[in-house]
Amino acid sequence: MGEGGQGGQHHGQLRSGAFAHNPNVVSFSHSLPDFLSGRDTPRAFLERCLEKIATREPEVKAFVVLNVEAACAAADAAGARYRAGKPLSMVDGCPIGIKDIMDTRDMPTQMGSPVYAGWQPRYDAACVQALRLGGAVIVGKTVTTAFACGATNATANPLDSRRTPGGSSSGSAAAVGAGMLPVALGTQTQGSTLRPASFCGAVGFKPTHGVLTIQGVHPISVSHDHLGVIGGTLKDTWRIASHISLANGSPGQPFLQGAATEPPPAVKPRRLLRLYTKGWEKEVEPETRAAFEAIVQRLTGAGVTIASRENDPEVAGLESALDGDFVERSLEITAYEMKWPYEQYVADHGDLLEKRVHDRIAQAISMTPAHYENLLAEKAAMKERVRRIMQGADGMITLAASGPAPIGHGNTGSRTFLTYATFLGIPAFSLPLMWVEGLPVGLQLMGHAGRDGKLCAIAHWLMRELAGV
Amino acid sequence: MGEGGQGGQHHGQLRSGAFAHNPNVVSFSHSLPDFLSGRDTPRAFLERCLEKIATREPEVKAFVVLNVEAACAAADAAGARYRAGKPLSMVDGCPIGIKDIMDTRDMPTQMGSPVYAGWQPRYDAACVQALRLGGAVIVGKTVTTAFACGATNATANPLDSRRTPGGSSSGSAAAVGAGMLPVALGTQTQGSTLRPASFCGAVGFKPTHGVLTIQGVHPISVSHDHLGVIGGTLKDTWRIASHISLANGSPGQPFLQGAATEPPPAVKPRRLLRLYTKGWEKEVEPETRAAFEAIVQRLTGAGVTIASRENDPEVAGLESALDGDFVERSLEITAYEMKWPYEQYVADHGDLLEKRVHDRIAQAISMTPAHYENLLAEKAAMKERVRRIMQGADGMITLAASGPAPIGHGNTGSRTFLTYATFLGIPAFSLPLMWVEGLPVGLQLMGHAGRDGKLCAIAHWLMRELAGV
Repeated sequence: MGEGGQGGQHHGQLRSGAFAHNPNVVSFSHSLPDFLSGRDTPRAFLERCLEKIATREPEVKAFVVLNVEAACAAADAAGARYRAGKPLSMVDGCPIGIKDIMDTRDMPTQMGSPVYAGWQPRYDAACVQALRLGGAVIVGKTVTTAFACGATNATANPLDSRRTPGGSSSGSAAAVGAGMLPVALGTQTQGSTLRPASFCGAVGFKPTHGVLTIQGVHPISVSHDHLGVIGGTLKDTWRIASHISLANGSPGQPFLQGAATEPPPAVKPRRLLRLYTKGWEKEVEPETRAAFEAIVQRLTGAGVTIASRENDPEVAGLESALDGDFVERSLEITAYEMKWPYEQYVADHGDLLEKRVHDRIAQAISMTPAHYENLLAEKAAMKERVRRIMQGADGMITLAASGPAPIGHGNTGSRTFLTYATFLGIPAFSLPLMWVEGLPVGLQLMGHAGRDGKLCAIAHWLMRELAGV
Repeated sequence: MGEGGQGGQHHGQLRSGAFAHNPNVVSFSHSLPDFLSGRDTPRAFLERCLEKIATREPEVKAFVVLNVEAACAAADAAGARYRAGKPLSMVDGCPIGIKDIMDTRDMPTQMGSPVYAGWQPRYDAACVQALRLGGAVIVGKTVTTAFACGATNATANPLDSRRTPGGSSSGSAAAVGAGMLPVALGTQTQGSTLRPASFCGAVGFKPTHGVLTIQGVHPISVSHDHLGVIGGTLKDTWRIASHISLANGSPGQPFLQGAATEPPPAVKPRRLLRLYTKGWEKEVEPETRAAFEAIVQRLTGAGVTIASRENDPEVAGLESALDGDFVERSLEITAYEMKWPYEQYVADHGDLLEKRVHDRIAQAISMTPAHYENLLAEKAAMKERVRRIMQGADGMITLAASGPAPIGHGNTGSRTFLTYATFLGIPAFSLPLMWVEGLPVGLQLMGHAGRDGKLCAIAHWLMRELAGV
């Protein structure tokens, strides 16, 4: 089923085996020509989304707040612009969900925490401003774990409600994976965009660190916080990321490389580094391994060189370096940077916070300035080392999750495979290219810092080559 | 009069000539030993501040909001800790004013603009959190121009109420210059800390860009926004900056170099670059020139080498470069970065905004991504050029303002001399070392990026050598 599928009740009827695509998803980009020709309208598109929300939301619980009236008005305004042949921007009329740690002027922003119960910001976060001023249809606020670093929440996986949708951008991924929305915003400080995208059969994209503005988004750790986009299709995902960048560049940073209405044309990679990571041995079940190996074989068969620790000493060295104390040290940076504002939340509302916040703040308070500066210096050195090792490769591949979404809602799953790209600040996609036990697992594609468009061109090729979309 | 002076009604009785010190100012650091010995208490210190506020505030109008009850409670709590010999931090019990673009959980934060009339944030900005958790006594919110980039406001110069106190940190400088507070927070995106410090006879300090956290402070331009400190004495100024840095380091940035309870020991500079700048010919009256020349002569007499465009071709080249289109191009960066959130203010409340905001946003909207990236690249190249030229010098000196505070309240004065250090991101002090027409004019001392403590050591020497404090 192609990008334009509005999906029916496909959940539970998914195909097994690799190289499939979540049939539930809907695509804004697919409908755009029809908006221009008059065969379809943003309001009709929105109504189809609202119907799907009416059907699935009671079970999936992706939204904290819906703003149907304002969304209908925004869709009608967009429709009038399309009828006049003058859309405002590349996202005019696109329904979208906003993670509930992003300020919205017309909806409460409650951070998934009772600390912010009922909180109403005065203005939109920069990403929301960019979308709203571009004519996008802000449908609602999507469920997050507490402050995007909590253990879990009420949202269910749209493909199997017994399972977690992943987190922390749980509602955004679930809404997209269910076909309730074509696209939604997330954030990633460890694995919060790519993990739920993987679990919900959506495309997840976390750009180079700093490239998409996080102004007006509640912080965890500025050195590691990324704005992310979760879409049913690569086209919609890239379109939204591109629009946000071009409409409101991140201060002091370059724009999203390759930002444009359409993803860059597909480019076949010549050489990819395959990372096993310590998660491969410790966390991955045989069926997921088999699905990933099938992709590796398919790529090799297509003439892509795959370098791995087995055949390349540099890659072996990289794996060792990343699986040394890199992740642990990065988490210390995160803890330190949580001092503001979490130190005051602990002082005021300790009883409303999860234990991990208390632990991190205790760790932060005990840290010396010299220690924090050392951590930053080590991080800079590791980034430079990875940059050198990645020269001559078009990207790196690994899993986007340890497997399909686990059963149960006690936590949002492992982020072992995701912290590397996050803490290195390099761009990464989760591409819905594997199915294991009838459930999606993402292929993670990581690229060179600052070359997001070049990475998207490879993602484009992978989606076409492996899923036919 | 030394640092400990609680000041009387000294305004209007100031000495003429260079090398004097504002006799109104009060010093927290001076009283600290007495808190520890029990001869004085934070509450008594606060009461003296409140008396001065009662006397001067009706004329000076430095505060938007006072929180006397909370301040008294905080001072009493600090007093109990001193009695127990256990102060919380180096700022425990220090009365301080907070510029009204910084979020405060217990006072409205109105940005000097009707757009934010009555706005009550839920939590403290990072700098306020650092102070409050350290036991500082948050006395009130100080008047700012609208969003720290407006033309003027109601505050009067405490040394001559017909004159502007400077801006945008008007209330902070006026409160300190009047002796209503020992110290207050400001920000600087062009000249908003050093200019009012110069006009009000206070010490102003703008650290290396990025070193003090601006999280929770309303932005103008992230690439140029600095947290600043305005104090009656160098000791208090350095103490507050040091505490904020050590309590809550700026994410991803080094800490304030040399941060400590006391300023670094005085160090005599060997070689200083003297900048004339285009302001010297265009804006400076003879009496101000004479006061500055007297300082240069005094320094030369003390054995400090002064390199200037007259005797050093590299300095001449630097002056030319800075007075080319560097400032104009930097202002384009500022305009671009104002897109968030000012673009939505323009859309919603155009009638409540000053013309300059409309102009900047129109400029920002017309700017291409490539143009903005070029501006950033040019900025980086200029920073590197200045870094090279400053090698072999201990710092640069120029005026902190074109002269004494102008008469009238139509605008907050020229910022010609101040934009260089701001846009280069290098640390700068305004030191109250000149008196012209009975009014203060600051000596601006600029240093090497990241070497704030080394610059403070020179400032320390200058204050001792030239003002005997």
